[in-house]
Amino acid sequence: MEKIKPRTLSGFMELLPRRQAQFERMLAILRECYSLYGFTALDTPVIEASEILLAKGGGDTEKQIYRFQKGDADLSLRFDLTVPLAKYVAMNYGQLTFPFRRYQIGKVYRGERAQRGRFREFYQADIDVIGDGELDILNEAEVPSIIYRSFTRLGLRRFVIKLNNRKVLNGFFALLGLSEQAGEIMRTIDRLDKVGKDKVRAMLTEDVGLTEALADEILALITSGEAGIDPLDALEKYLGRDETFDKGVWELRQVAKSMEAFGVPASAYRIDLSIARGLDYYTGTVYETEMLDHPEIGSVCSGGRYDDLAGYYTEKKLPGVGISIGLTRLFYVLEEAGYLNDELLTAPADALIIPMTEDLAPAISLATALRDAGIRAQIYTEKKKFKAKLSYADKLGIPYALLLGEDEIARNAVSVKALSSGIQETLPVDDAAEFLKKGLAPLTSGAPIRDKAE
Amino acid sequence: MEKIKPRTLSGFMELLPRRQAQFERMLAILRECYSLYGFTALDTPVIEASEILLAKGGGDTEKQIYRFQKGDADLSLRFDLTVPLAKYVAMNYGQLTFPFRRYQIGKVYRGERAQRGRFREFYQADIDVIGDGELDILNEAEVPSIIYRSFTRLGLRRFVIKLNNRKVLNGFFALLGLSEQAGEIMRTIDRLDKVGKDKVRAMLTEDVGLTEALADEILALITSGEAGIDPLDALEKYLGRDETFDKGVWELRQVAKSMEAFGVPASAYRIDLSIARGLDYYTGTVYETEMLDHPEIGSVCSGGRYDDLAGYYTEKKLPGVGISIGLTRLFYVLEEAGYLNDELLTAPADALIIPMTEDLAPAISLATALRDAGIRAQIYTEKKKFKAKLSYADKLGIPYALLLGEDEIARNAVSVKALSSGIQETLPVDDAAEFLKKGLAPLTSGAPIRDKAE
Repeated sequence: MEKIKPRTLSGFMELLPRRQAQFERMLAILRECYSLYGFTALDTPVIEASEILLAKGGGDTEKQIYRFQKGDADLSLRFDLTVPLAKYVAMNYGQLTFPFRRYQIGKVYRGERAQRGRFREFYQADIDVIGDGELDILNEAEVPSIIYRSFTRLGLRRFVIKLNNRKVLNGFFALLGLSEQAGEIMRTIDRLDKVGKDKVRAMLTEDVGLTEALADEILALITSGEAGIDPLDALEKYLGRDETFDKGVWELRQVAKSMEAFGVPASAYRIDLSIARGLDYYTGTVYETEMLDHPEIGSVCSGGRYDDLAGYYTEKKLPGVGISIGLTRLFYVLEEAGYLNDELLTAPADALIIPMTEDLAPAISLATALRDAGIRAQIYTEKKKFKAKLSYADKLGIPYALLLGEDEIARNAVSVKALSSGIQETLPVDDAAEFLKKGLAPLTSGAPIRDKAE
Repeated sequence: MEKIKPRTLSGFMELLPRRQAQFERMLAILRECYSLYGFTALDTPVIEASEILLAKGGGDTEKQIYRFQKGDADLSLRFDLTVPLAKYVAMNYGQLTFPFRRYQIGKVYRGERAQRGRFREFYQADIDVIGDGELDILNEAEVPSIIYRSFTRLGLRRFVIKLNNRKVLNGFFALLGLSEQAGEIMRTIDRLDKVGKDKVRAMLTEDVGLTEALADEILALITSGEAGIDPLDALEKYLGRDETFDKGVWELRQVAKSMEAFGVPASAYRIDLSIARGLDYYTGTVYETEMLDHPEIGSVCSGGRYDDLAGYYTEKKLPGVGISIGLTRLFYVLEEAGYLNDELLTAPADALIIPMTEDLAPAISLATALRDAGIRAQIYTEKKKFKAKLSYADKLGIPYALLLGEDEIARNAVSVKALSSGIQETLPVDDAAEFLKKGLAPLTSGAPIRDKAE
């Protein structure tokens, strides 16, 4: 028979088992962290009606979306988890309780040009809090602590959560008489990290058409932190001139002053007035998260406060705040940069039971008992030489081989061989589970990421 | 602005939060059960090249598949998890260790005609063991114990795992001189549950063209269990006449005799010689799982042994054994039949912290401490009356409200109100986590399904 060459599409991450085990660990940690903050899991379809997903329309979305006909239906694959959330909340408004806190971790699809480190299918790990009509500032203040807990639990150490507030920026531009150019200015200062201060100044004067004095004033404020001035102090002198600005400064202070109680150390966050996220529809606090040793990859967790989640679907005013981790790309970057903790147990099993007798009943009973105790046990009965059996465990990284011969069975015992050390000892069967648990603890307690700082 | 009516496509399950929490619990249990048997997690793309997915081609698959162009690429959404596994194993053969045991729980897509209880997007929860060239019978014997553990952990009690062996059937038809009609006979007897014995006899004689005597002999054997005869005894008299048959009987015995050591009680499985799964490419043991009180929904977990997983992609002979749970449909049926355990905690949080002072720092610190202790805590700061705050917790089913007023803060205490009983008591902050854990234990220890038998 003619064979078809097996292949996976480019731009689609498909991991080998040990890598997948690390990825699964990251998923589990995020699920747990998000749950600790009272977010409930949602799972919306991958396919939606195109008119739903493209309600907002325009831009890259329409170019990149996977859209197709099936029968009479015009269908698309979701390109983020926010639009499906908006649909869900608008549709189920009467059955939800607000503020509605949900997390969703799922795959999204964007038919981008294929290039290294860019994915067409990738996981997003999102949380959002949706209010009905209004939403207290505490929800915005809490978000950095969720990022902090999630990232530290994943094992990251050297990262900083950058905070800003769109009301501060909009108010500031307003009090300079630049309300009309606000959007353009924000998209320009968003490039500060990439192109530098001089280039941004040139863009502000040449492209946006600001005077040099205004460009300098803007740059002085948004880079105040860099210049060694507390951004909250730098904002002081503009207070009292624009209501939105004053509100923004108050919000930023509220957020900053809660950090300690939320357990976020001063080293892990910073107010950065140059963070604008000008392409998104944010109206209050905005967030970006930078890996200190890899600023070149940009923000690995971003989000912000918005005023109207579902305006395309409902008259209800649904303000919210949310963040998203692009998990597939983050994982790719971590792997490339050597951050994945390969010492963490990634084997499919904790123990490989090797029966040495014809009768398999004792081996099966042992496996059953170990599984009852929560130990991942596999029985190996393929017809191979003993050495090949041990080598199977070794290749998979299974830490223990459990040998059951006639002697062991007669004494209701089992010989436990630790494959890393080669040390073998014979134990009563009843003690095996506890013995293994002790040995396994150090192999499973680590985080999936090992930051360079450690 | 003109609003677009928010809707979810028909045939796509999208759950409300409390139902989703139950579904998530089921996913977590299956992940854990599969892991206990040494299966490693895989996650293949939802989209594959059409030539890969349609390598086998033909039949319902091609009609139902979601297939579309994107640029030059001819793409399809996976319709099961087995074909992507075959691709994966063929592609990564050199980097895998065999027997390769993997589980995958993921969504698959079939554009079936929409009808109640039929889904176009649905979860499959699969395990497969793939051998390189050969695979020991123990792997087949172990499968019922995996089904048994998974189903009982989910909370199901009244189910039976039906076992048969295709070598027995093929060998039996061969020794009756009916090898050529074997496929047709198997697809006919597969309908026994639905149409009954008389109709199957009529189909065997009229459609397949068997003599009445042969039809009766077949029916007598495959319904021997029903007639009170041990199927293994019924097979005895045919031994020694066909090699395949003898091999099949030996295999069936091997499987049956391991059940006790695997912890599967006699009431949970049965050899049923009428199980053929004639549409699938099985070559050894086959499995079906029936809910005793709902036989009408058919098998909720099926699978079997096959000789050649990836013949479309590789010359390597890769035999395997696997099962699949159609989780979305199972969940739908369980909900319809009232099996979901609504007493299990499905709230997004364990405790709602209600600060009664202007300064939120004590409430935030309490939330942080509780989260550190693994308790899902939410701080409620929306501007509402006290009653509305309690009602928020109540509507969401959050079991505890934690009140922090000036008195409590001064004494480093917290007032804990159990919403189900209304009982309120004031505790030292340091004791709150332990107190809550004790109270939460009975709410979270149950299974997501409550079988009628309990």
